[in-house]
Amino acid sequence: MARKRIGPQTVKLEQPPVIIGAAAVAGPLEAQGPLGQEYDRTYPDLTLGQSSFEKAERQMMIDACNLALQKAGITGKPPAVDYFLAGDLLNQIISASFSGLEVGVPMYGLYGACSTFCESLAIGAQLIDGGYADRVLCAASSHNAAAERQYRYPTEYGNQRKPYAQYTVTGAGAVVLAAIGEGPRITYCTTGRVVDFGIADPFNQGAAMAPAAVDTIEAHLRETGRRVEDYDLIVTGDLARFGRDMARQLAAQRNLILGGNYNDCGAMIYDHTRQDVHSGGSGCASSAIVTCGHLLKEMARGKLRRILVVATGALLSPTTFQQGENIPAIAHAVALEA
Amino acid sequence: MARKRIGPQTVKLEQPPVIIGAAAVAGPLEAQGPLGQEYDRTYPDLTLGQSSFEKAERQMMIDACNLALQKAGITGKPPAVDYFLAGDLLNQIISASFSGLEVGVPMYGLYGACSTFCESLAIGAQLIDGGYADRVLCAASSHNAAAERQYRYPTEYGNQRKPYAQYTVTGAGAVVLAAIGEGPRITYCTTGRVVDFGIADPFNQGAAMAPAAVDTIEAHLRETGRRVEDYDLIVTGDLARFGRDMARQLAAQRNLILGGNYNDCGAMIYDHTRQDVHSGGSGCASSAIVTCGHLLKEMARGKLRRILVVATGALLSPTTFQQGENIPAIAHAVALEA
Repeated sequence: MARKRIGPQTVKLEQPPVIIGAAAVAGPLEAQGPLGQEYDRTYPDLTLGQSSFEKAERQMMIDACNLALQKAGITGKPPAVDYFLAGDLLNQIISASFSGLEVGVPMYGLYGACSTFCESLAIGAQLIDGGYADRVLCAASSHNAAAERQYRYPTEYGNQRKPYAQYTVTGAGAVVLAAIGEGPRITYCTTGRVVDFGIADPFNQGAAMAPAAVDTIEAHLRETGRRVEDYDLIVTGDLARFGRDMARQLAAQRNLILGGNYNDCGAMIYDHTRQDVHSGGSGCASSAIVTCGHLLKEMARGKLRRILVVATGALLSPTTFQQGENIPAIAHAVALEA
Repeated sequence: MARKRIGPQTVKLEQPPVIIGAAAVAGPLEAQGPLGQEYDRTYPDLTLGQSSFEKAERQMMIDACNLALQKAGITGKPPAVDYFLAGDLLNQIISASFSGLEVGVPMYGLYGACSTFCESLAIGAQLIDGGYADRVLCAASSHNAAAERQYRYPTEYGNQRKPYAQYTVTGAGAVVLAAIGEGPRITYCTTGRVVDFGIADPFNQGAAMAPAAVDTIEAHLRETGRRVEDYDLIVTGDLARFGRDMARQLAAQRNLILGGNYNDCGAMIYDHTRQDVHSGGSGCASSAIVTCGHLLKEMARGKLRRILVVATGALLSPTTFQQGENIPAIAHAVALEA
């Protein structure tokens, strides 16, 4: 087994990279949610003054990057970071690529659907600890209106959705990872395998992704020798309320009790009693804005010391759905420790 | 600067990872081209017996992976590799994600448009040399009919194309990288920045990508202290004939003479005097099948000892084109040495 690998899916960072800056930006509905005060910037409408939703999403990613760099004390253009690792949900990850043009440093484009945020942290952590980078900028974004019209129907159609459908989060999160500095550290990365549990309904992504989340959490605990209760919080990316319940049940079948220290970012972003988001949030921004906007701040406040962020991705496309295929899913976990 | 970094864009692999297996599979038109005998498998038609072009592309990627694993002497299911790093051109990189379901090992999905092949090699090399993996499986694919109907028009429309348009290559390439073994080694990786030289015509991708290729080649030579003539071959990914000429001219303006040891994979795949491919090949498979099918074999035959593969990517989408934007581009270089 490779030197820094402790199991088939988990690597241990020898000199755990540190998060020296992070920022979350979010749309108007997210701003009205329970975590609204936590985001570094929120926007009064979905356009950000841009001429298209796609350009608005890109602007959010750029804003998140600039805010994270600022907090990390990195000025200058291009910024003094070695890599930009980013992805999003739009076809050909145009939010990330066009943001890369703005950021101006060597870039690797990533696509793990809504798992992209943790994918970027995991690759970034390995590139830093491996000695290839001193600082890496990681980012992920999604935009409700841009995603809806690409994946489903333009929101103007007002089409009805099933109660278990999810609402794509409008927002972006960015993190500056560094070899040295002060802040929470990435200690372990558990990389997901693609799994398929037979779900084919594209409105039921929570069900498609829950098995992937449990698969990765189980691998993480087995390979690190840790228990659920060793974490102050285990948080999945965007299973939302129904998917979160499913994850709890699936985990219980494997004798893994995800109790009060388990939650899901997609279930935390909105208040379903007063916000019409059905099962809850989804999208790359779900885990990104909850982690960058809320969880890292809770760590800074001393409220959380050790958390496991498990970003979940549904690897379908409209084409695979139309061609009658199931929805494969993946989940990547990173352990963050104060 | 990070320990294994020798410049803003280039890292040096301390213990250069070795390519212990590689395979290229290709479509019928590619089979009839000048390198037709070099590919490990070719298919008599574009469907591979599948019910859609998209499923055919996926099957090609799976075939390339299985052949590469076989050559590397890796049997078993899932195969004994630590990561699967893959990407393609289809929306949500469905070829890679569904192949990941088949491969069954921890996966990072990548998107760098047609630069994806070198992106996967560069990340894979760093993950191995960094101590996180003993073996990594890298793959990239494209399919003419799947790409045409997604990006432009279904080929059945028979629409006219400009002479400088390119032809998306049908094929897939896969590489097994390892910490130890026999074969060519990846010694340096120069990661590209996103550049935009004002090209907005989606049929003129060679022109959009040529500046990115020259930017990365120049950075590579400057940061390694090497000269053009230190390489037996410098090969770009998919500039095709017109883009290759442009790259030569742009390089000359920067006092860099890309002479007889420079070529482009997209210009090598077809014989334009007898094959109707306009400027030449494009797509993720362009650099992947020429490298895996031909160049690595030339290295094994002792005909090439040191080459620089510079995969080029046009980071547009139909949406960015329709919204009137330019085509940003990127190029990633990996140095392969016998």
